[in-house]
Amino acid sequence: MRQAGRYLPEYREIRARAGSFLDLCYAPDLATEVTLQPLRRFSMDAAILFSDILVVPHGLGQQVDFREGEGPVLDPVESAADLARLDLNRIGVALAPVYEAVARISGELPSNVTLIGFAGAPWTVASYMVEGSTSRDFARVKAWAYGDPAGFKELVNLLVKATVEHLSRQIGAGAEVVQLFDSWAGVLPDEQFQLWCVEPVAEIVTLLKARHPHIPVIGFPRGAGGQYLGYATNTGVDCVGLDTTVPLDWAVERLSDARVLQGNLDPVALITGGEAMRSMAATILERLAGRPLVFNLGHGILPSTPPEHVAELCELLRADGD
Amino acid sequence: MRQAGRYLPEYREIRARAGSFLDLCYAPDLATEVTLQPLRRFSMDAAILFSDILVVPHGLGQQVDFREGEGPVLDPVESAADLARLDLNRIGVALAPVYEAVARISGELPSNVTLIGFAGAPWTVASYMVEGSTSRDFARVKAWAYGDPAGFKELVNLLVKATVEHLSRQIGAGAEVVQLFDSWAGVLPDEQFQLWCVEPVAEIVTLLKARHPHIPVIGFPRGAGGQYLGYATNTGVDCVGLDTTVPLDWAVERLSDARVLQGNLDPVALITGGEAMRSMAATILERLAGRPLVFNLGHGILPSTPPEHVAELCELLRADGD
Repeated sequence: MRQAGRYLPEYREIRARAGSFLDLCYAPDLATEVTLQPLRRFSMDAAILFSDILVVPHGLGQQVDFREGEGPVLDPVESAADLARLDLNRIGVALAPVYEAVARISGELPSNVTLIGFAGAPWTVASYMVEGSTSRDFARVKAWAYGDPAGFKELVNLLVKATVEHLSRQIGAGAEVVQLFDSWAGVLPDEQFQLWCVEPVAEIVTLLKARHPHIPVIGFPRGAGGQYLGYATNTGVDCVGLDTTVPLDWAVERLSDARVLQGNLDPVALITGGEAMRSMAATILERLAGRPLVFNLGHGILPSTPPEHVAELCELLRADGD
Repeated sequence: MRQAGRYLPEYREIRARAGSFLDLCYAPDLATEVTLQPLRRFSMDAAILFSDILVVPHGLGQQVDFREGEGPVLDPVESAADLARLDLNRIGVALAPVYEAVARISGELPSNVTLIGFAGAPWTVASYMVEGSTSRDFARVKAWAYGDPAGFKELVNLLVKATVEHLSRQIGAGAEVVQLFDSWAGVLPDEQFQLWCVEPVAEIVTLLKARHPHIPVIGFPRGAGGQYLGYATNTGVDCVGLDTTVPLDWAVERLSDARVLQGNLDPVALITGGEAMRSMAATILERLAGRPLVFNLGHGILPSTPPEHVAELCELLRADGD
């Protein structure tokens, strides 16, 4: 999950002078600074690039705005005909500041801290591109996917290519692991999940592994519920990110044989702190004992999180890991 | 799922003259009318009472408003001390108009159409009561549940009693089946899901069965994902409502031995219509062939649904069932 954010006063200070949220993502010096901020406070094994999954549609040429308190607003793509407005060849130039940030962060991180790059998975990015904003019911993007699968597949294919390009350039600049965030994986029926969440991610993994065979890929199909197993089995990702709700006994039994698990402390436990936080973290460590685990939150860190709770959690994990 | 709603012009007409949304729920003649509207258009096997899960906190004495385009707004309950403002004994009188509506609907329905009563499950109702509105992250209600489980349990215990009272009165007035909607079941980690979704529902089922042994109980833990099995196994519900994302092969294999399944067509399929809708409905019928099934949507019907698509679906199901 994003480690930087509004819970840190030093982030809020930089955010206040950066102009828009996208301006912050595209300023290599500021993106580097906010990526490194949590590392200066907390003892963490990895840093994750500060960026946003919507830089990809923006890089393709779609209008994207972040409005304060409202979330992202995009000029919607509504049919295959609208794809003519988008251009895969823009990515390299338009997103060059992101890759420059990756290179700077890579240069500043100590060698024992891993740098994670990331992108949105095609279904989630397509949801924003078609809905034009955060959606409650995903009616537009689903109606397109269900009613005109061939046309929708053109959009998804474009996103597969753009995602591979975006991640490859991050790897070229120094990212050592990449993560695919499928934040809206949890809204599709079974067959549609296979078509729009599993298959495009499998394609991305195949294409990435051909270029960068030693870079691990983490897949995070948030909310996939009963579809987690199909995702873990059929996408080829090296590590599966578990959201907060995934039962760990089940995950260990069904998912952990071939893959690393990542997860899944409820971010609200970090707000609560104290014994509740310690006991929920200890449960994760116990259930995954002896298996490869990337300890993480099961969802993004919340703005009201007290930084001292994060510090306590990191110390607790460090003590367990030593 | 609610069958009435804004997708029907005759509903919008009554809604426009009813005053607030709660006024509509508390006007027995109007609630009866909107409950029966879909039955006049479509060939359905069951009717579900038109009401809302928030009548229970309102009946207990909490301030509840429905604001147009904004959803419900409640005067939040924040700690066990606030429970003194709530009174279980108010339910019978405050919600008498709901029971009168049930009695009227029961009197008007043909004998071969089942009347379903309902209530929200305690976790979901508590979420609204504590957050004060629809929430993105459930930080307040979770922080209470994680940090002060004994205090939060008092609220949940009150809701267990209120729910049993509310459902028993609906049954007394003519409801033949009752459904518990746990719309926010999909946000809790494993152990917390057991505490706040499974145990309170199990208590409600036990208490209801003691009073009304022959009334089937449907449980709908929307978004429960990997926790569906624990819910189906440990709550004692007769029928499990599946949300849109539950893989049917898995549900048949793991959930269907002892219980009826209900679900789970994506409401967006009803917007799309045509071959996509027919094929997604046919998939459900095929996977559940030979097993007891309450065909339903996997989530609420959307306002932009064309009524003629609902009519076509009902005819298709009727032809299959005959």
